[in-house]
Amino acid sequence: MHSILILGGGKSSTYLIDYLSDTCQNKDRKLILADLDEKAALEKLKNRPNTFAKSLDVSDPEKRRSLIQESDLVISMLPAFMHPTIAKDCLDLGKHFFSASYESEDLKKMASEIGEKGLFFLNECGLDPGIDHMSAMKIIDEAKEKGHQITSFKSYCGGLLAPESEDNPWKYKFTWNPRNVVLAGQGTSRYIEKGDLKFIPYHQLYKRLESIHFEGLGDFDGYANRDSLSYRKVYGLENIPTLLRGTLRRAGYCKAWNVFVQLGMTDDSFEVNFPENSTLRDFINAFLPYDPQLSVEEKLGVLIQDLDFPTFEKLQWLGFFSDRKLPKTSGSPASLLQAILEIDWALGKEDRDMIVMQHLFELETDQGKEILTSSLACFGEDSTYTAMAKTVGLPLAIAVDLFLDGKIKLSGLHLPILPEIYLPILEELEKREIVFQEKSEFQP
Amino acid sequence: MHSILILGGGKSSTYLIDYLSDTCQNKDRKLILADLDEKAALEKLKNRPNTFAKSLDVSDPEKRRSLIQESDLVISMLPAFMHPTIAKDCLDLGKHFFSASYESEDLKKMASEIGEKGLFFLNECGLDPGIDHMSAMKIIDEAKEKGHQITSFKSYCGGLLAPESEDNPWKYKFTWNPRNVVLAGQGTSRYIEKGDLKFIPYHQLYKRLESIHFEGLGDFDGYANRDSLSYRKVYGLENIPTLLRGTLRRAGYCKAWNVFVQLGMTDDSFEVNFPENSTLRDFINAFLPYDPQLSVEEKLGVLIQDLDFPTFEKLQWLGFFSDRKLPKTSGSPASLLQAILEIDWALGKEDRDMIVMQHLFELETDQGKEILTSSLACFGEDSTYTAMAKTVGLPLAIAVDLFLDGKIKLSGLHLPILPEIYLPILEELEKREIVFQEKSEFQP
Repeated sequence: MHSILILGGGKSSTYLIDYLSDTCQNKDRKLILADLDEKAALEKLKNRPNTFAKSLDVSDPEKRRSLIQESDLVISMLPAFMHPTIAKDCLDLGKHFFSASYESEDLKKMASEIGEKGLFFLNECGLDPGIDHMSAMKIIDEAKEKGHQITSFKSYCGGLLAPESEDNPWKYKFTWNPRNVVLAGQGTSRYIEKGDLKFIPYHQLYKRLESIHFEGLGDFDGYANRDSLSYRKVYGLENIPTLLRGTLRRAGYCKAWNVFVQLGMTDDSFEVNFPENSTLRDFINAFLPYDPQLSVEEKLGVLIQDLDFPTFEKLQWLGFFSDRKLPKTSGSPASLLQAILEIDWALGKEDRDMIVMQHLFELETDQGKEILTSSLACFGEDSTYTAMAKTVGLPLAIAVDLFLDGKIKLSGLHLPILPEIYLPILEELEKREIVFQEKSEFQP
Repeated sequence: MHSILILGGGKSSTYLIDYLSDTCQNKDRKLILADLDEKAALEKLKNRPNTFAKSLDVSDPEKRRSLIQESDLVISMLPAFMHPTIAKDCLDLGKHFFSASYESEDLKKMASEIGEKGLFFLNECGLDPGIDHMSAMKIIDEAKEKGHQITSFKSYCGGLLAPESEDNPWKYKFTWNPRNVVLAGQGTSRYIEKGDLKFIPYHQLYKRLESIHFEGLGDFDGYANRDSLSYRKVYGLENIPTLLRGTLRRAGYCKAWNVFVQLGMTDDSFEVNFPENSTLRDFINAFLPYDPQLSVEEKLGVLIQDLDFPTFEKLQWLGFFSDRKLPKTSGSPASLLQAILEIDWALGKEDRDMIVMQHLFELETDQGKEILTSSLACFGEDSTYTAMAKTVGLPLAIAVDLFLDGKIKLSGLHLPILPEIYLPILEELEKREIVFQEKSEFQP
């Protein structure tokens, strides 16, 4: 009897828990869900046979290691910074390890020992990273097999709202960690285009957009992610002339978000202290030059030269030109902005989220240049059964299931970029309606 | 017989060494100059009686502490990061400590112990910080004594070139640490204007300029320094409506420097790797969007909408539109830019530098509003006897001389903001032609 330990039963674990719990009895497995909140964990297990909830404070090494010791395999749904600790426990205690987070430097250092002990450690097996790797590698491997040359690969992903829930001018609400959304894109983004290295500093990022279209869903803004260059090696595309990975927002979002970036309101590196009772108008005014003659609106119009009505409306809707009180007056500018947005961009109970992903390939084939577009759109059911939880949790759950069934026979430290990992996972995802639509055009 | 130890005999120590060595015999003092390069140190002492050169690697604690042990007083001209270590040695061994660097948090933690041991630790006693504090505090204390209200204080300083050495389009060469010049202004600058907190992110900094005029020297660009707000406390101006400290460059410099900032070429947070034989044109092109139709010059014109000829000329003069090879192809963008500028902005042997400083006060007096402008211009003699070395080294040397003569009778951790420190130093500086010109206007 195999024993699975899931660490962390938060918002993104719902589908993962359901998928693995449902088969515990049939497959003669035991599942332990350990969370700080034992009662919530118990509810999520819905009394399914062979499933158990445990209370766990992961900072308690004794309790943590004793739970890991009892299991065969650990799935960490904890915040990413905890993963090296959990992975180290697994390595010490001889347990397999699964996560949806990036393979960190700490993990890489453990690689040879993981292999020596015959353990299987799989990371980046969620949505992004995860489904992006798997769906891209399927196309890349097929193209290579056919002898086609891949000359360009651009890949975009976004966690957004289903169209009927886009009921504010930003067409955005938080479906994921708000802090990450506020700080998104900081640093310099790097990619390669037609063989030229390209660097985009943060303050240019939300101006350098590509328009990405999804059939039936309309247009999105795509902006470059932090580091696309490192994916050349991961995907075995060392000499590809064009490689870019990016993030999607609804068309118009980026132009308005860029106002915050241009003003410096997303800075997380220093503390501001506004007087009690300061307003959102005071907050934005602090980032505008002093001028005794001009209003806040007028100063903004001078500084942001292409300020148009859709952008103005988005800021106005948040209350930046009103006397709305700041929900928080001390902290970094980014944390003040986050506190405002957490009120206005809260996901309603009935809101449905949406995941969109698109790969754009250019291939040199015998029939000329092929433009291959592969698109995924996935919708949540409500604010608990979200598309985010589904696309993050299912690939991981399926990987665990396949591994325990002996259908993935590997050891060592891995990403889901090998056919024996990604093929059966993509097949199973397809049954759950997580399926890419491919479109191909030839330019002979 | 008092014994003075100077740690570090670099470029900025020339005047300091001369001032203190000249009087060693008369004042019955001994001076030890310790440097990694003993021969260079010996040359600087010019065989003056009672002066000695020692070889010292400051990372050798035994040798360092034995030299400190032998002295009564230590002047640290080492890089700022070394000061906490040296100050700690001085505290342990019961020696007085002098530096021209900012009073760090580590130093502040030693404050009570310094006082208890009856030691005198003086920091920020160079140019900026140093002469700025002293000259400002003289005006502030005088105004307070007269019962005048200070409503605005803006203070600017720049280390530049004497007009006859301004022989390139930037009218700039390195007279100080090149790395600091390339990274200048990163982060968010904060100040207060008419009672409103104001924040300027780095990418807006070189656009938010004030024009500062010096009689006989013409116009300069002033941009805000990182943190002006903390000076409210230092200067005892807690409730002042307007306080800003800034840096001066020749008019036109900032607009051209802003091109590098806008493109992201001053980023020091990540590594680029250009192919061998890459040119300055390739370097700038990596920060411009890909466009098969447009040249580098045209793309720059699209991105930098107010690109004018004086700006274009400055970039062209550095070779950014030519096939000039990059002197360095790997490292952060900022380090590549620095490597280019270190060639083109090198100070020639005959070049003379120039220090400019200006305080702009607004005071409420019995005769109405007074606009008080206090300006300093100081010129170097050549590339060794620079205005920078003079204005950094002399205040420190004078402070040490006054202290050993018993004319400053203080203990504890200090900045030169008390009259008993700044008055005699300013008086002595005046004899050496470091003197502020005051201009007063009344608006009744």
